[in-house]
Amino acid sequence: MIIQSIQTLWQKLQDTQPLVHCITNSVANNFVANVCLAVGASPAMIDNKQEAGNFARIASALSINTGTPTPEQALAMQYAAQSANAEHTSWVLDPVGYSEILAWRSQIVDDLLQYHPTIIRGNASEIASLAGAQSSSKGVDSTLDSNQVIDQAQQLLGTCDCVAISGMTDYILSKALGIFAITGGSNLQPKVTAMGCALGAVCAAYLGVVEEDQSPALAAIAAHVHFAIAAQIAEEKMIAQNVGIGSFQILFLDALFQIAADDFEKVEINQIAK
Amino acid sequence: MIIQSIQTLWQKLQDTQPLVHCITNSVANNFVANVCLAVGASPAMIDNKQEAGNFARIASALSINTGTPTPEQALAMQYAAQSANAEHTSWVLDPVGYSEILAWRSQIVDDLLQYHPTIIRGNASEIASLAGAQSSSKGVDSTLDSNQVIDQAQQLLGTCDCVAISGMTDYILSKALGIFAITGGSNLQPKVTAMGCALGAVCAAYLGVVEEDQSPALAAIAAHVHFAIAAQIAEEKMIAQNVGIGSFQILFLDALFQIAADDFEKVEINQIAK
Amino acid sequence: MIIQSIQTLWQKLQDTQPLVHCITNSVANNFVANVCLAVGASPAMIDNKQEAGNFARIASALSINTGTPTPEQALAMQYAAQSANAEHTSWVLDPVGYSEILAWRSQIVDDLLQYHPTIIRGNASEIASLAGAQSSSKGVDSTLDSNQVIDQAQQLLGTCDCVAISGMTDYILSKALGIFAITGGSNLQPKVTAMGCALGAVCAAYLGVVEEDQSPALAAIAAHVHFAIAAQIAEEKMIAQNVGIGSFQILFLDALFQIAADDFEKVEINQIAK
Repeated sequence: MIIQSIQTLWQKLQDTQPLVHCITNSVANNFVANVCLAVGASPAMIDNKQEAGNFARIASALSINTGTPTPEQALAMQYAAQSANAEHTSWVLDPVGYSEILAWRSQIVDDLLQYHPTIIRGNASEIASLAGAQSSSKGVDSTLDSNQVIDQAQQLLGTCDCVAISGMTDYILSKALGIFAITGGSNLQPKVTAMGCALGAVCAAYLGVVEEDQSPALAAIAAHVHFAIAAQIAEEKMIAQNVGIGSFQILFLDALFQIAADDFEKVEINQIAK
Repeated sequence: MIIQSIQTLWQKLQDTQPLVHCITNSVANNFVANVCLAVGASPAMIDNKQEAGNFARIASALSINTGTPTPEQALAMQYAAQSANAEHTSWVLDPVGYSEILAWRSQIVDDLLQYHPTIIRGNASEIASLAGAQSSSKGVDSTLDSNQVIDQAQQLLGTCDCVAISGMTDYILSKALGIFAITGGSNLQPKVTAMGCALGAVCAAYLGVVEEDQSPALAAIAAHVHFAIAAQIAEEKMIAQNVGIGSFQILFLDALFQIAADDFEKVEINQIAK
Repeated sequence: MIIQSIQTLWQKLQDTQPLVHCITNSVANNFVANVCLAVGASPAMIDNKQEAGNFARIASALSINTGTPTPEQALAMQYAAQSANAEHTSWVLDPVGYSEILAWRSQIVDDLLQYHPTIIRGNASEIASLAGAQSSSKGVDSTLDSNQVIDQAQQLLGTCDCVAISGMTDYILSKALGIFAITGGSNLQPKVTAMGCALGAVCAAYLGVVEEDQSPALAAIAAHVHFAIAAQIAEEKMIAQNVGIGSFQILFLDALFQIAADDFEKVEINQIAK
């Protein structure tokens, strides 16, 4: 039944091409824009403080990512999140690098929480740190498995409607839908930079098409399933063609774009708690 | 006859590899640099206010794009345009996102017009807005067709030597050569981010090799034809190989690079007004 | 014997995946991160002044590149270099665009020299300029051959432990190992933007795994050999598949990633001075 809802949402994404306002990092922005286009959305990367607040008002959804903040961009994030909150526009917070060692951006993220993100998406280290646990990371990469931080992630459900933890298995937590586990994808995903960042923006793309009476967690689930299937297909082709990680990235974009409704049945998705 | 002029210009581009000074957005800069290299130019992305004015003096041509401006970068644009104007160096203005909702950058663009851009290049929404018409857009994407804004675009020919409107059909307007319509390309181009931004830089690359007695409109025509053919070839190969949008981008770069003089005959180009 | 040391170092890179702190330019950052991942390192692009100094303390190595500096980023470079120097962490300085015409960044580079970079890596024009010679360049591209500037480069060996000059033949200079010449690679490398920038970061990746009793020059040699072989393989495949420069970039990433220990024997490496 969940698969059917995802397929319907995906079709709506293709039909309406929602405008997704992205404020992301300088490593990711080209890839994020191309991923958004490949899944069917219309991205606009407006990240200056002069325009971001105003622009967030007209977007279907907003995605904020703290990979390479500057003081100017941090203000753009604040103004955009403020607008989104005021206009009841759904938005995604991707707290890249949240940790003790990267204290400045972590404070930026803390400040953004007041604007009630719809989805908080991150790797296990980031989610655990954000939930207040002592955690460790390797730069911006996680040193924890996603299943280790589910309990801690629950604590964030007062701050947002949905928490998405990416890893070998992805976990999507919400009060509305409980906990969904998505298994699949490829263990090569961490070998392509900005994969997680792009996933955050795709969550926003799907948020741009969820109905009023649907949970935003459905958008997060759809985004993670779409990603996992594309990564699976890309890895299979990479191995079959005996190519490497450069080709994997291209095959992944191809798969995001070429995906058909049937493909959504290829991934393992389980509701592990209600 | 126009095809022959384009072929000659293209050959000159290969032979001289002009230095093209690009001030572009953070989503586009890697792709723009690679596109410039693929067509035969030598790009340099100098976008700080301390160096941009000085550097524009030694470049063969300048390309300015307002996709993700910062206050610092806006000054770099101003100083570079000022230098280009003072040195009679040709330059391209690509007013990405020009619209009422993105008022700050639109003011930056307005201020740059005093330095008389050689070519103004944009999509239909941007060109219409810049010409003072009420217009609408979807973020940084056009909601108008290129043929709807030709009349409005004419009004910009006092401000610049040539206006290039990209779309399903591209229109190149100038007092010297009238209106040229270029049909071809691929409708997948808007599905790859920064395609338009790269086209602006390629206009600058061709401006770097036009002779004194040639119209800058010839550079714009050559750039659009080069782009359209490459996109056509890329789409054909994408379909033949049953791949997707990630591969399309790579095949497009391949085609820009592998193009031969004969290929320039593959596109439909018509002078629709004198 | 040198090949064996390189193979051992490469294996260690795969096994330990050192955290490489990169402060690089906005054209290169996505490609640099993907190249670092492809060779086996774990990159983190922390380039704000609030966090860079602190982060450099926990990284295995640091790479600083002056391609598109901003005043804020220049401070991040300074703080990171200062930390690296204080912690005896090895770091690479890639003085992109060092020249008279780009005076502002050249001053930034001059200021960074006080923190004693482990490796200075650049093209022939940059290295000659930095060594105080009158030099010329075409934007950020070299107009000199690498073999023309070996003598000048020697003068930098007081300021750093190793100088790496890239070109048709790469030269790696150090007091410990003399001068090594690496021939191979592909003459298509300058046709892909940020190739040199990525090479600087790969030098840092290898610095992250050299032993205390090994010369940092070994890291530079390993990085240049790894790059040269991958470029060779990529060009061979590009020609065999009759594709172009877009595919070359992807094939290059594939080759960096798919390289096997045996492949390191494919490149010509000679100690031309002791």
